[in-house]
Amino acid sequence: MNDETVFILNTLFFLFSGALVMFMAAGFTLLESGMVRSKSVAVILTKNIALYAVAGVMFYLIGYHLMYRGVAAHDGLFGTFGLWRPDDAAAASGDFSAGFATTADWFFQMVFVATAASIVSGTLAERIKIWPFLLFTALLTGVLYPVTGSWVWGGGWLDALGFTDFAGSTMVHAVGGWAALSGAIVLGARRGRFDAVGKAVPIPGNSLPQVALGTFILWLGWFGFNGGSQLSLGSGADAIAVARIFANTNMAAAGGVLFVLIASQLFYKRIDLPQILNGALAGLVSITADPLTPEIGQALLIGGAGGLLMMAGVKALERLKIDDVVGAIPVHLVCGIWGTLAVPLTDSDAHFATQLLGVLAIGGFTSLCSAGIWLALKATVGIRLHWAEEDRGGDLSEIGLRAYHFDFGTG
Amino acid sequence: MNDETVFILNTLFFLFSGALVMFMAAGFTLLESGMVRSKSVAVILTKNIALYAVAGVMFYLIGYHLMYRGVAAHDGLFGTFGLWRPDDAAAASGDFSAGFATTADWFFQMVFVATAASIVSGTLAERIKIWPFLLFTALLTGVLYPVTGSWVWGGGWLDALGFTDFAGSTMVHAVGGWAALSGAIVLGARRGRFDAVGKAVPIPGNSLPQVALGTFILWLGWFGFNGGSQLSLGSGADAIAVARIFANTNMAAAGGVLFVLIASQLFYKRIDLPQILNGALAGLVSITADPLTPEIGQALLIGGAGGLLMMAGVKALERLKIDDVVGAIPVHLVCGIWGTLAVPLTDSDAHFATQLLGVLAIGGFTSLCSAGIWLALKATVGIRLHWAEEDRGGDLSEIGLRAYHFDFGTG
Amino acid sequence: MNDETVFILNTLFFLFSGALVMFMAAGFTLLESGMVRSKSVAVILTKNIALYAVAGVMFYLIGYHLMYRGVAAHDGLFGTFGLWRPDDAAAASGDFSAGFATTADWFFQMVFVATAASIVSGTLAERIKIWPFLLFTALLTGVLYPVTGSWVWGGGWLDALGFTDFAGSTMVHAVGGWAALSGAIVLGARRGRFDAVGKAVPIPGNSLPQVALGTFILWLGWFGFNGGSQLSLGSGADAIAVARIFANTNMAAAGGVLFVLIASQLFYKRIDLPQILNGALAGLVSITADPLTPEIGQALLIGGAGGLLMMAGVKALERLKIDDVVGAIPVHLVCGIWGTLAVPLTDSDAHFATQLLGVLAIGGFTSLCSAGIWLALKATVGIRLHWAEEDRGGDLSEIGLRAYHFDFGTG
Repeated sequence: MNDETVFILNTLFFLFSGALVMFMAAGFTLLESGMVRSKSVAVILTKNIALYAVAGVMFYLIGYHLMYRGVAAHDGLFGTFGLWRPDDAAAASGDFSAGFATTADWFFQMVFVATAASIVSGTLAERIKIWPFLLFTALLTGVLYPVTGSWVWGGGWLDALGFTDFAGSTMVHAVGGWAALSGAIVLGARRGRFDAVGKAVPIPGNSLPQVALGTFILWLGWFGFNGGSQLSLGSGADAIAVARIFANTNMAAAGGVLFVLIASQLFYKRIDLPQILNGALAGLVSITADPLTPEIGQALLIGGAGGLLMMAGVKALERLKIDDVVGAIPVHLVCGIWGTLAVPLTDSDAHFATQLLGVLAIGGFTSLCSAGIWLALKATVGIRLHWAEEDRGGDLSEIGLRAYHFDFGTG
Repeated sequence: MNDETVFILNTLFFLFSGALVMFMAAGFTLLESGMVRSKSVAVILTKNIALYAVAGVMFYLIGYHLMYRGVAAHDGLFGTFGLWRPDDAAAASGDFSAGFATTADWFFQMVFVATAASIVSGTLAERIKIWPFLLFTALLTGVLYPVTGSWVWGGGWLDALGFTDFAGSTMVHAVGGWAALSGAIVLGARRGRFDAVGKAVPIPGNSLPQVALGTFILWLGWFGFNGGSQLSLGSGADAIAVARIFANTNMAAAGGVLFVLIASQLFYKRIDLPQILNGALAGLVSITADPLTPEIGQALLIGGAGGLLMMAGVKALERLKIDDVVGAIPVHLVCGIWGTLAVPLTDSDAHFATQLLGVLAIGGFTSLCSAGIWLALKATVGIRLHWAEEDRGGDLSEIGLRAYHFDFGTG
Repeated sequence: MNDETVFILNTLFFLFSGALVMFMAAGFTLLESGMVRSKSVAVILTKNIALYAVAGVMFYLIGYHLMYRGVAAHDGLFGTFGLWRPDDAAAASGDFSAGFATTADWFFQMVFVATAASIVSGTLAERIKIWPFLLFTALLTGVLYPVTGSWVWGGGWLDALGFTDFAGSTMVHAVGGWAALSGAIVLGARRGRFDAVGKAVPIPGNSLPQVALGTFILWLGWFGFNGGSQLSLGSGADAIAVARIFANTNMAAAGGVLFVLIASQLFYKRIDLPQILNGALAGLVSITADPLTPEIGQALLIGGAGGLLMMAGVKALERLKIDDVVGAIPVHLVCGIWGTLAVPLTDSDAHFATQLLGVLAIGGFTSLCSAGIWLALKATVGIRLHWAEEDRGGDLSEIGLRAYHFDFGTG
C-alpha cells in the first residue's frame, strides 16, 4: 500500500474516531444533567458546553505544544509554550511519511483533554460556582493535563521508563478523577448530603432516562476513544488491532454492567440502576489502559472487576463524607488506577512497579496542583455558592432560569 | 487494489457500521422509556442496558459458534458449541485473502443479535419481571437466534434453498417479533389495557420526545445495519451497492412516515404521532430484507406499504387483546414478514415460495421455542409482577426508585 | 493511488458524512422540542420527522435534477425536471473516473436540503398549522432550495461569477433563515409574545436538556456537514483539507460559545444558557461558508463574531416584534450572511462584492418566493391555529394528545 493511501486512511480514522469522542461531551452532559436535582440542571448544561469550548481553545493556545513539542529538551518533564499550528508541508509536497494530517491528530488529542475536564464537572455539581469552575478547567486543560501527558504520550520520562497507558485510564480518566477528588474535598459536600451523624443521605437525580442515554453515548464514543488510540489504520495489522479493541471495549463495558447487576442484587437485594449504568463506564475506564492485549474473556473480567471496585469506591467515598454527585471518582479514578495496574496481567511487556510509579506520579502531581488551584480560588474569588443560593438551586440563583417548564395549557 | 487495502477498508466498514448498530440499543431504550408510563421507566432502562450486555456475552460464549461454525456438518441445522475466538493468523502473516479482521465480523454480528433482544423488551414492558426477562434474553441471544441464523447466514439449509434476507427482516426483526409475540400471549396484557367489554384503552407514554429521539437514533443506526450488511467495501461495485443501500434505507423510512401520516389523517381524521414514528421503523424493517435491488422509488413504496401494514397490525393486536406496549410486533414482525416476502418483487433471483418457507420455518421455530421458554419460566420462577406491584409500577416495586424527580427547590 | 480506491474512499466519505448530517435532523428536533412550551411539543416532533421525509421525497422527485442537471442549458438559472436516478454505468464497467457512486452524492445533497427545512420549523413553532407547513416544506425542498442551489453548486450564474460558499452558510442556512423570516412575518407572533406596549415577554422552553442535547448533536453533525463538503477524500491533499475543516468547525463553535458566554455576563450580568447554546450554532453557521482557508485562530474569531451578531439579531427581532421561537433567524440567517461575507477575509480568491451579490440574490429570491407561498397559503387553507387552539396548544388541539404524562402510580 502506498504512503498516500495510508495517510488518507489514518487521517480519516483520526477524524471519525475524534468525532465519536467529541460526542462523549454530550454523554457526560446528559449523565450529569440527569443525576443532579432539577434545580441544578441548567447550570450543569452551561458548564458542560462551556468546558468543551474552553478545552479546545486552551489546547490550541498552549496545551498541545506543552504536551507534544520539545519534551525531550526539558528532561521529559514538559514541552514548549506556543500556539498550535498545522505542519503538513511535507505531505503537501508529496512526502506522506508523517502518516497523517497533523490537524487530525490535534483534533483527536483535543477531544481527549475535553473528556478529562468533563469528569470534574459531574463530581462538583450543585454547589460550585460557574466561573471559578471554568477557570480551573482552563488550567487543567491548558497546563495540568498537558504536563502529565508529556510524561507519557509526549515521549517524556515515564514513557522512557516503559509506563504504558494505551488510551488513557490514567492519562485522561484518573487525571480527571484526581482533579475532581481534590475539588470535592476543598469544596465540601452538598448541604444535606450527610446527616447529623454523618450518614450518607441519597439524593436522587431528576431524570434517569438522561443518565441512561448519556451512558449509551459514552459507550458509543468509547469505540472512538480506544479504537482511535491505535493512532493508525494503515496496515492489516492495524485493522486487526482496532477490531480487537472494539470488541474488548464493548465486552469490558458489558462485564461492568453484569457484575454490578449481580452484585447489587446479592449485596443490596435489589437492582441499583444508577450503579449499573456506572458499571458500564467502570468497565470502559478499566479497559482503557490496555484494550488490545487482553483476550475478549479477559476484557470481560477486567471490566467486571472494575465494576466491583467502582461499587467499593462509592462506599468508601460515603464513609469519607466526600460528595461526588455522579460517582465520577469511583468510575474514573478508581477504575483508572485499576485499569492501569491491570495492564501487566495481559501485557508481558508492562511491569507492575512501573505502572504503579506512573499512577502515583501522575496522581501526585495532578492532585497537588489541583488542590493548590482550588484552594487559591477559594481564598480569592470563592468557589462555592452561598448556602441560600445552593438551597434555591444554581439554576435560579446563578443564571436566573429553570431548566424545565412543564405546563399543559388550558386543555 | 491490493488485498491489504481491501482488508483494511472492509474491517473499518464493519467497525463503524457496527458502532452505528450498537447505538441502536440507545434508540430502542429511548423509544421504550418514552412509551411506558412514568412508573415503569427505570425498569425499562435497566432491562435495555442489561440485555445489550447479556447479548454480547452470550454471543461470545456460544452464539457465534452455534451460528457460523460447522453448520454444514450438522446438516445445516445448527453449528458447534464453543467460545468465540479471533482467527487472524493468516492475515497476521501477510495473507489478507480472508478479507477482514475476524473480530470485526464478530462485533458486527453481535450488535445484530442485541437488536433482536431489544425488540422483545418493548412489547413486554410494564409487567414482566426483570430477571426472567434477562434469562429469556440469554437463551434468545445464545441459542434461538443463532440456530435460525445458522440456517441462512451460517450457510445452513435455508441458504441452500435460496432463501434471501439481506440484513435481517426475518433473521433479526421477525425473530425478535415472534419472541415478543409469544411472550405477550403467555404474559397477558397490562391491567387496564382492555376494558370490561374487551375494548382497548389507550395508555399514553410518558415522554414523546424520548420516543422521537429513539426513532431518529434507530434511523441513523439503520444505515450501519443495512449498509454494513453488504459485508464488504473492497471494490467499486461494493461502494455503489452501499450507496444504494443508504438511499433505499432512507427512502423506505420516509415512505413509512408519509404513508402513515396521510393514512392516519384519512382514517382517524387526525395525525397520530406515535404511529408516524413507528411508520419510520416499519419502513426500515420492510426494506431490510432487500435494501439493494429496489429502485429508490420502489423502496419508497415498500416502506410505505410497510407503514400501512403496521397500522393494520396495531388494529389486529387490539382485536386479539394482545398488549404490545411500543408496537414492536406490528413494526418488527409484521413488516419483517412483509419485507421478506417482498424481495421477489424486485429481485428476480428470489422466489416467493422459498421466502415464505423461510418465514414460516424461522417463525415456527422461534415462536415454539420462545413459548416453551416463557411457559417454563412462568411455571417456575414466575414472569409477571404481582398486580399490586404492577399498579404501583416496577420502578418502585422492583428496583425501589423513581425515574424522575422534578422539584424546583425553594425559589 | 488507483481510481477504484479513490472511488471507494470518496463514496465511503460521502455516506458517513451524510449519516452525520442526517442525524442533525434529530438535533433540530430536540432543540425545537425543548424550546417550545410543553403544550406544543408533540406537534414540533411531528413536523420534524415529517419534514425530513418530505425533503427526501421531493429531492428525489424533482429537487436533485432542478439543482444539478442541465443548469447551463437554462442560462445558469435552474436545471431540468426529472426523477433522480443513479448513473453508475461507467463505474460498473470499471471506469472509476466519476470519482464516487452517484447515489452517495444524492444522499449527501439530500440531507442538506432537509437541514434547510429544519430551520424553518423552529421559528414558526407553536402557531403554524401542520399541513400548510408541510406543503411549504415540499415547495422549499423541491423547488426554492434547488433553484438557488443550481446558481452555485449546480454550476449556474453565481458560480460563474465566482461566488463561493463552501458548505452552505448562504445556500443552506440563510435560505432556511429567509424562508423562516418570511413565514414569521406573514404568520405573526405567538399570542402573548409581546405585551401591550410591544415589549418582548420571555416564553421559556419546556426542557433545556433537550435543547443542549440537540445542540451537541448539531455540533457533531456539522463535522459531516462541513467535512463532507470537501466532496473528496481521494488524495493526501484532501485529507489535509478535511482535517483542517474539522478543527476549524470545532473552533468556530467554541468561539461562538465563549464569546456569547462572556458577552452575556458583561451585558446582562448573567449567563444566558439558551443564547450560549445558540452561540455554538452561530459559530458553526459562520464558518460554514469557508471552513478551509482560515487559520484555526481565525476560525475562533469568525465563530465568536458570529455569536455576537446572533445576540444582536435576537435584540433586533424583538424590536421588530418578530417572533422566532428558537432563534433560528439570528443563528442561520444573520450568521449565514456574516459567514458568507467573511470569506474574503481569509480567501484571497473571493471578492466581497460578489459575495454580497450572492447573499442579496439568493436572499431576494428566497424571501420573495417564500412570502408569496406563505401569503397564498394564508389566503387559501390558512396557516395559523385559531387563537383558542393556540392557547390550548397544538398538541391537544391539532393532534389530540400530550407529549408528556408524568404520573407516578400509587406508590
